[in-house]
Amino acid sequence: MPLEDSLNRHKDSLLAALEVDDRARLDAQLPELRSADIAEILQDLLEDEDALRARALLDCLPLERQASVIGHLHGEEQLAFTAGMGDDRLQAMLEEMGADERADLFKVLDDDRREALLRRMAHQEREELKRLASYEEGTAGALMTSDYVAIPAGMTVSRAMMRVRQTAPDAETVYQLYVIDPEGRLAGTMSLRQLMVARPGARVDDLMIHDVIHTTVDTPQEEVARVVARYDLLALPVVDEARRLVGIVTHDDALDVVESEATEDIHKGMSIGALEDGVSRVPLWSLYRKRVTWLVLLVFGNLLSGAGIAHYEATISAQVALVFFLPLLIGSGGNAGAQAATLMVRGMATGDVGVRDWGKLLGRELLVAGSLGLTMALAVAPIGVFRGGETVALVVAISMIAIVLFGSLLGMCLPFVLDRLGWDPATASAPLVTTMIDASGVLIYFSIATLLLSGG
Amino acid sequence: MPLEDSLNRHKDSLLAALEVDDRARLDAQLPELRSADIAEILQDLLEDEDALRARALLDCLPLERQASVIGHLHGEEQLAFTAGMGDDRLQAMLEEMGADERADLFKVLDDDRREALLRRMAHQEREELKRLASYEEGTAGALMTSDYVAIPAGMTVSRAMMRVRQTAPDAETVYQLYVIDPEGRLAGTMSLRQLMVARPGARVDDLMIHDVIHTTVDTPQEEVARVVARYDLLALPVVDEARRLVGIVTHDDALDVVESEATEDIHKGMSIGALEDGVSRVPLWSLYRKRVTWLVLLVFGNLLSGAGIAHYEATISAQVALVFFLPLLIGSGGNAGAQAATLMVRGMATGDVGVRDWGKLLGRELLVAGSLGLTMALAVAPIGVFRGGETVALVVAISMIAIVLFGSLLGMCLPFVLDRLGWDPATASAPLVTTMIDASGVLIYFSIATLLLSGG
Repeated sequence: MPLEDSLNRHKDSLLAALEVDDRARLDAQLPELRSADIAEILQDLLEDEDALRARALLDCLPLERQASVIGHLHGEEQLAFTAGMGDDRLQAMLEEMGADERADLFKVLDDDRREALLRRMAHQEREELKRLASYEEGTAGALMTSDYVAIPAGMTVSRAMMRVRQTAPDAETVYQLYVIDPEGRLAGTMSLRQLMVARPGARVDDLMIHDVIHTTVDTPQEEVARVVARYDLLALPVVDEARRLVGIVTHDDALDVVESEATEDIHKGMSIGALEDGVSRVPLWSLYRKRVTWLVLLVFGNLLSGAGIAHYEATISAQVALVFFLPLLIGSGGNAGAQAATLMVRGMATGDVGVRDWGKLLGRELLVAGSLGLTMALAVAPIGVFRGGETVALVVAISMIAIVLFGSLLGMCLPFVLDRLGWDPATASAPLVTTMIDASGVLIYFSIATLLLSGG
Repeated sequence: MPLEDSLNRHKDSLLAALEVDDRARLDAQLPELRSADIAEILQDLLEDEDALRARALLDCLPLERQASVIGHLHGEEQLAFTAGMGDDRLQAMLEEMGADERADLFKVLDDDRREALLRRMAHQEREELKRLASYEEGTAGALMTSDYVAIPAGMTVSRAMMRVRQTAPDAETVYQLYVIDPEGRLAGTMSLRQLMVARPGARVDDLMIHDVIHTTVDTPQEEVARVVARYDLLALPVVDEARRLVGIVTHDDALDVVESEATEDIHKGMSIGALEDGVSRVPLWSLYRKRVTWLVLLVFGNLLSGAGIAHYEATISAQVALVFFLPLLIGSGGNAGAQAATLMVRGMATGDVGVRDWGKLLGRELLVAGSLGLTMALAVAPIGVFRGGETVALVVAISMIAIVLFGSLLGMCLPFVLDRLGWDPATASAPLVTTMIDASGVLIYFSIATLLLSGG
């Protein structure tokens, strides 16, 4: 298994061979490497601003391999290679690519280049490319490929088998077959496994599953991935508004979606907008913009906490020991609340938690948060006695329970409220929740303090 | 596509049929539902503490279907069904399951039950089950299945094809074939697609890929999933220490791992330990334990902040307006720092960020955090003038830049330091990072204030 070290060794060796133009060594070594690995070496070179050697390395590969490697790169990186290619070579490479990767590459090219390429294509090829490239990013349409095996309804098993053999080199997967009616509508599906053990004279219509799990072109990609995961699918067929089969989303693409959606959710949980690339590659300006928005918005939330503190100046001067416990109380409330919000947001994203579960989850959170608050109160009470006497200890302990309980319930409910308002529940990020709890925590703490200390 | 609503309709209709013991309606409706959907209906019933009807519903299914549905449930839920089954029926159901699901179910049974079942099995079957059940949770061994198609080296294409047809009903996937030498070692691999288009008289040895991507039984599951994702694999073969093929991990299991590891990472990011089940199902006591540990540990960090504030009491009394900005400054630093930590932790988890990238990322973070600090300083300075005059504004602005910069760099570096110490980088959770920044922020703010205000 190619670990980072082994990949670096390969890279060094390849670059050394390139240096002295040792074609024999390059030709011997390159076939040993997988496209994903070569792509990573090229990415490394681009990150080191060594586009020249990256291009030279790519040129050493056969065209089919070049297409596969380019397919593993991100848009910006692809442009670093295509910029120097003539239209002829680019067109030849596009032809070697899978339909979905071809469309992805096509989308990052500039208009002139697209026009030049489209003019060189046959009508059908052109229309298919334009169609695949037209779907909105993040939908099933943008994810799918048109390289699937379609079997006309009514075909016999033996003829379907011949069709599979013919399509084998081009199709993304030949292991799941889709039966279409004369209007191109999805009529059924069967696995190659079923086909292989079936009687050659039987008709596919009698073998296929009629009730096919499918999705539509405009379905969001996270939902597509969830269906693939739920039913352990090799591929999920995609239909248009007339139920015509227009593509399939394969298991490897679903896996990539789950990974990238999780990354997006994790970033959102910390009030970072969706990045268009990995954190080590995304432009600094973009990284700044995606982080600054909420940071500045939350300034106003934090000003509320400050105003709260200012409002209770008299209480604070009367009992300065109270300030000592302020960070502890609002910090604990914020942490417990962020935990509760995170549990809900992730539960909703994976489908584990639905809006109908709200009541039940509220009851559970009350119990857990109550226990958490009680534990923290017990932990902090002795310190309260030590720093400010028994009354302060009582104020701190009661405030701890109240703030942890309030914070947890706020954190738990916020994602549901946002969802209800048609917002993304993930907006209930840790920074937003903790800022809200900081401000309310100040009020809760000093209200309890004013009440108990003035009365005592 | 079965949405939540449609599933609920199905559930209601099934329960109504069950109520009046309408077998015809049950037999008509159940085959329309997929095992994953029936499993969800059973889960709903168990959550509503309606185990009786859940069992009755399961009993309506043919044995093979029961096995498939049970395979979709979690350990605790499986026990709710197996508890009432006799050994005969349980054994028959185990035989219908895939090898990996059989081992998973076996693991949750109690010792007496296991002994009773093992006694009923043939020697080979028993040894295989014991072996599969023996691997540690979270490793390739625990994830893999032994239902793969193995082709002995030297076989011809036509005989290999016959072997595929024979194994088809039992194997988890027949689409990737593994060639093994006489000692059982993994010698090569080929796809069914390659086999189908090959000359029948050719030998598999001449067609197969010799350099097979594989993993070992004790490899952590997140690494297994990463390899499957990187190379777009249908299945990843697993070998023992003698390079003997012992199982495969299929794409659908890898997808589940990516999803559950992401959930675990998201929870860890908020200082919540790994939950053994979904948030709506995990026992309350467990949820409490997984949340309380860090909350209590962080109390001590927060006490430092309190001690810092107490230490600067004189400065605060001299210029009370300073307290107004305290939550704002430490809050902003904490948020920026949590963002930086989260970006690194996720980058390291996906393999996007490596330890060797540290220097480059530090430079990037300096630039971005510097800009963030500057932006926030500009946003907050006017409020400083308004609340406390120009000197306070200056103190607040300089502190903002210093705290955001310090917080971001701390958040960025912490995951690398933890990784270096052999800890999980994900320990650099948002609560830990913000607590650390709160304490340091208090010191930075009041140091700057003391310096500038006493000098002014």
